[in-house]
Amino acid sequence: MTDDKQTPVTVIGLGDMGSALAGAFLDAGHPTTVWNRTASRAEALAARGATAATTAAEAVAASPLIVVCLLDQGTVREVLGPVAGALRGRTLVNLTNGTPRQAREDAEWAAEHGADYVDGGIMAVPPMIGRPEAVVLYSGSPAAFAAHERTLGVLGGATHLGADPGLAALYDLALLSAMYGMFGGFLHALALTGSEKIPAAEFTPLAVSWLNAMMTSLPAMAQAVDSGDHSAIGSNLGMQATAYVNLLDAGREQGVATGLMEPMQNLLHRAVAAGHGGDDLSRLVELLRTNP
Amino acid sequence: MTDDKQTPVTVIGLGDMGSALAGAFLDAGHPTTVWNRTASRAEALAARGATAATTAAEAVAASPLIVVCLLDQGTVREVLGPVAGALRGRTLVNLTNGTPRQAREDAEWAAEHGADYVDGGIMAVPPMIGRPEAVVLYSGSPAAFAAHERTLGVLGGATHLGADPGLAALYDLALLSAMYGMFGGFLHALALTGSEKIPAAEFTPLAVSWLNAMMTSLPAMAQAVDSGDHSAIGSNLGMQATAYVNLLDAGREQGVATGLMEPMQNLLHRAVAAGHGGDDLSRLVELLRTNP
Repeated sequence: MTDDKQTPVTVIGLGDMGSALAGAFLDAGHPTTVWNRTASRAEALAARGATAATTAAEAVAASPLIVVCLLDQGTVREVLGPVAGALRGRTLVNLTNGTPRQAREDAEWAAEHGADYVDGGIMAVPPMIGRPEAVVLYSGSPAAFAAHERTLGVLGGATHLGADPGLAALYDLALLSAMYGMFGGFLHALALTGSEKIPAAEFTPLAVSWLNAMMTSLPAMAQAVDSGDHSAIGSNLGMQATAYVNLLDAGREQGVATGLMEPMQNLLHRAVAAGHGGDDLSRLVELLRTNP
Repeated sequence: MTDDKQTPVTVIGLGDMGSALAGAFLDAGHPTTVWNRTASRAEALAARGATAATTAAEAVAASPLIVVCLLDQGTVREVLGPVAGALRGRTLVNLTNGTPRQAREDAEWAAEHGADYVDGGIMAVPPMIGRPEAVVLYSGSPAAFAAHERTLGVLGGATHLGADPGLAALYDLALLSAMYGMFGGFLHALALTGSEKIPAAEFTPLAVSWLNAMMTSLPAMAQAVDSGDHSAIGSNLGMQATAYVNLLDAGREQGVATGLMEPMQNLLHRAVAAGHGGDDLSRLVELLRTNP
């Protein structure tokens, strides 16, 4: 059921995520217009009360707030390019995956067409949208974000990171890096224990408890990066580089590909060779900077 | 203060970890004999009540329980080889870092010399030893472990994983893999956010909260690995492979080396190419097996 006091919203791009976004706006009572290149994807939402626009121009014209969730930057330009003139005076919220540079380019493009621009990174999978545990990070125009904060809040927890439109993508990709690191290490661990037929379900509680314990060291690591004081608290890089050899040897002995774990060894060895053997793991951040 | 009712223990190898082990035995009242190739490392422990043996043979002869914590397997053989005859009837607990294969070799070597063998992996840094949050994983002779469980328990939580002497090293290295994966992803994330001068301390609370949320998916991943049913719950491998491109592009754009994150991309692409694009991340474990 829509409510005339709620801001009308247009959602362009109705993949799994776009459909979840539109569904959350509908559930919260926003007059919701939807559009997708393959029109059939709008049917389920229309049955829930959405207005299915027949053209992208009609979709843009329907609302002051345009939320876009497409495959990539190229698709955004293909879809919005022909209707750019209609964006004037509206707010474009771009939730398409991309890089900080792309977000900045898109903000400039929107400004050229007289639209306010807010970029966003969705830290959730589609079934989580509309629930408080879904986090959506935003950056770009502070005024446009403030004007639509309540509406965007129906998607999940809405955090504005700053006026630089690239920040949401930067944080998004940084969080995904941390996640893929953890998942990659865990999958390697399951391959190692699986090589001796240990059920993953037997090993996992121990891994979760261990990762929780290790996670408590992240704030100290962050502090070392900020201060530049990388003095080792626990095991130093020299000791870690020595012990790490066992990790790769064990992979080879147990028939587990070591590809996921090799870059860390390279970094450990480079840090030791550069004279940082007495330092903490936090020192490695400096070796990751290619533009120091 | 030592207590004659407590099992005498010998600790061989007095690096930071070996010294911490000997200190914990002393604190718990065990008559403790120590030995190190560089004798000066025994002085602080002698001042706390340890008996500093003058030879490795004297150290082995002093106790029914011999705890060894040296650099690597080669050092263990160099130190214990000449005094192997004295090990007969004693229990050798080897807490030296190594691989499952090395642990099995060391167990055979001990058996040839009439000693019981228990291998161990210490999931702690030296300052944690003697506190309940230190976890030490053991494997090998169940009878020898049972006989000395109370004594070993003074080092931290003692868990016996099974009679196969390789299991402690396997679990140890699997847990370290998971940890290094998480740390590597986090350090990459700090390099990304640092490229825009965002203080690590500002980003880290968000990262910790995100990693905690993502960690709740590990049991489902484990279940998928055990069952072989890798149907995607959230985002499938095809979608992840597409989005992952942004992660590497952003690294290049922001001046951050992408080495830590590249192996995961290779795995995602291989999985999609092999027809698993509709599956969950758990499917990647199969690609890590080189002896399927």
